[in-house]
Amino acid sequence: MILTVTLNAALDITYKVAALTPHTTHRVGEVVERPGGKGINVARVLAALGHECVVTGFAGGATGAVLRGMLAPLAPHDALVEIAGTTRRTIAVTDGTSGDTTQLNEPGPTVLPEEWTAFLSSYDSLLRDADAVALCGSLPPGIHVGAYAELVRRARARQVPVLLDTSGEPLRRGIAARPDLVKPNADELAQLTGSREPLRATRDARRRGAHTVVASLGPDGLLATTPDGTWQAAPPEPVRGNPTGAGDSAVAGLLSGLVAGLSWPERLSRAVALSTATVLATAAGEFDAAAYERLLGRVTVVEHTQAASGK
Amino acid sequence: MILTVTLNAALDITYKVAALTPHTTHRVGEVVERPGGKGINVARVLAALGHECVVTGFAGGATGAVLRGMLAPLAPHDALVEIAGTTRRTIAVTDGTSGDTTQLNEPGPTVLPEEWTAFLSSYDSLLRDADAVALCGSLPPGIHVGAYAELVRRARARQVPVLLDTSGEPLRRGIAARPDLVKPNADELAQLTGSREPLRATRDARRRGAHTVVASLGPDGLLATTPDGTWQAAPPEPVRGNPTGAGDSAVAGLLSGLVAGLSWPERLSRAVALSTATVLATAAGEFDAAAYERLLGRVTVVEHTQAASGK
Repeated sequence: MILTVTLNAALDITYKVAALTPHTTHRVGEVVERPGGKGINVARVLAALGHECVVTGFAGGATGAVLRGMLAPLAPHDALVEIAGTTRRTIAVTDGTSGDTTQLNEPGPTVLPEEWTAFLSSYDSLLRDADAVALCGSLPPGIHVGAYAELVRRARARQVPVLLDTSGEPLRRGIAARPDLVKPNADELAQLTGSREPLRATRDARRRGAHTVVASLGPDGLLATTPDGTWQAAPPEPVRGNPTGAGDSAVAGLLSGLVAGLSWPERLSRAVALSTATVLATAAGEFDAAAYERLLGRVTVVEHTQAASGK
Repeated sequence: MILTVTLNAALDITYKVAALTPHTTHRVGEVVERPGGKGINVARVLAALGHECVVTGFAGGATGAVLRGMLAPLAPHDALVEIAGTTRRTIAVTDGTSGDTTQLNEPGPTVLPEEWTAFLSSYDSLLRDADAVALCGSLPPGIHVGAYAELVRRARARQVPVLLDTSGEPLRRGIAARPDLVKPNADELAQLTGSREPLRATRDARRRGAHTVVASLGPDGLLATTPDGTWQAAPPEPVRGNPTGAGDSAVAGLLSGLVAGLSWPERLSRAVALSTATVLATAAGEFDAAAYERLLGRVTVVEHTQAASGK
């Protein structure tokens, strides 16, 4: 199975309003709730691709109970650790006219030291059956900034391939523990390396410890710097839609290709097709299965040769 | 005891953000939750004044459970009727710099016919011990627009004084059932009568069926047109603060004075002092008890004589 870790899970709530006008009162037309947090999103996409999946991390309080109740009928298996604090909500306010979204993210619950200890013990035992593990998203209050580094080390000690998808200091610390894969977006990569030049920045990120760096570059697709070479994969044509969850779908594609033993170009094609099919989906964070099948053979993958890339 | 009815109860959530900017992402600094809905607010103020209070209406789902959990340790007794739907949330996003608030109100749950029947039966039995009843706020989906008229009639049949505080068509229908008291604000009164001239509008509202009309006029205080005369009551000086809940505090003051058998000028003084002390309170919807005591003797109450008022 594939294990995904979401330390700061969330109940994602979407509000449809006519138009958001600060300092006025709005009647919300439609309320949609779904289990959220990057690792949970990744697991949903993996499950839709037919992979056996387990989600872990933390959930607690009334919001945690709602989140777990919504997870229960879905395919990923729930191995979240119960905490005393209350799982956060995120609210996406979508304007009816433009479709533009205003995001309000609650802070996460404070995780207690004994809850972190309980999580580590559960994580270790889940790793025994894991073909790969993804560590995703921000850290809630109470979790030390080196937490992802610790989870990377524990996965590597058990020879479980580990992907890290986070940002800021947790990424900086985590990458030094030598994860198999990191998937920063352009902003996260620039924050880590100080460079906005993708090729230079992905190589810098590799030197910091990651075996492979796959940068997600929005409409330009993915740039992968691996031990076997450097590739850029992009959708056959630009698409319009809602990019929410596109990065999580890319992570799911990379993991899916990894456990299937695909080549890098094949893994990147899968990740780009999934992430493009997510932008095209009607519901935020879902992917359009027909679009995915259609796109899969049409992703362009270009290898940067050693000479051209200066490798 | 005093009974308050909140058919569309809510969990009121306040988010503090630096400044709300549409179409961007915000990290919420502080999350505060409190039981909400006008009748619940009124009951909290009444309980703080020492009155025995019972709240009824509807609550359901995860949000309803949170609301009831927060009500449990408070003084008003919880007689809410459980429904299959989920209690709504309201979100007040407060800008840190200006204190300005952007309100997002979820629609209420749909109440089923059998849930309304269960409520009516509970309402009738609660009326037996009630010295007064307040019917407050909007109607949730599924409740017919004449619902308040029906609740007014049932209270009057049992000789329980009944106050109605709602707006739009539910107010128009409810007033025709001859409640003892309605408390519209200036907008609600104008919507009902077509007039923005308070004296004319309150008299028009009386002719529509209410025995007494007390209009809340914001900083200008209250204008009461009663069977015994017409009075205007105002705070001794203008105050600055958050007007959230000031109308509910006025309702609590009117009910408190009613069950205490006070004269109209005394009831109006109590209502104005409470509502002004609510504007002055730090927490939205609470009242500043010291300010209330200080203001109580200083509210100005002026009677409109028959000649002057054209009565």
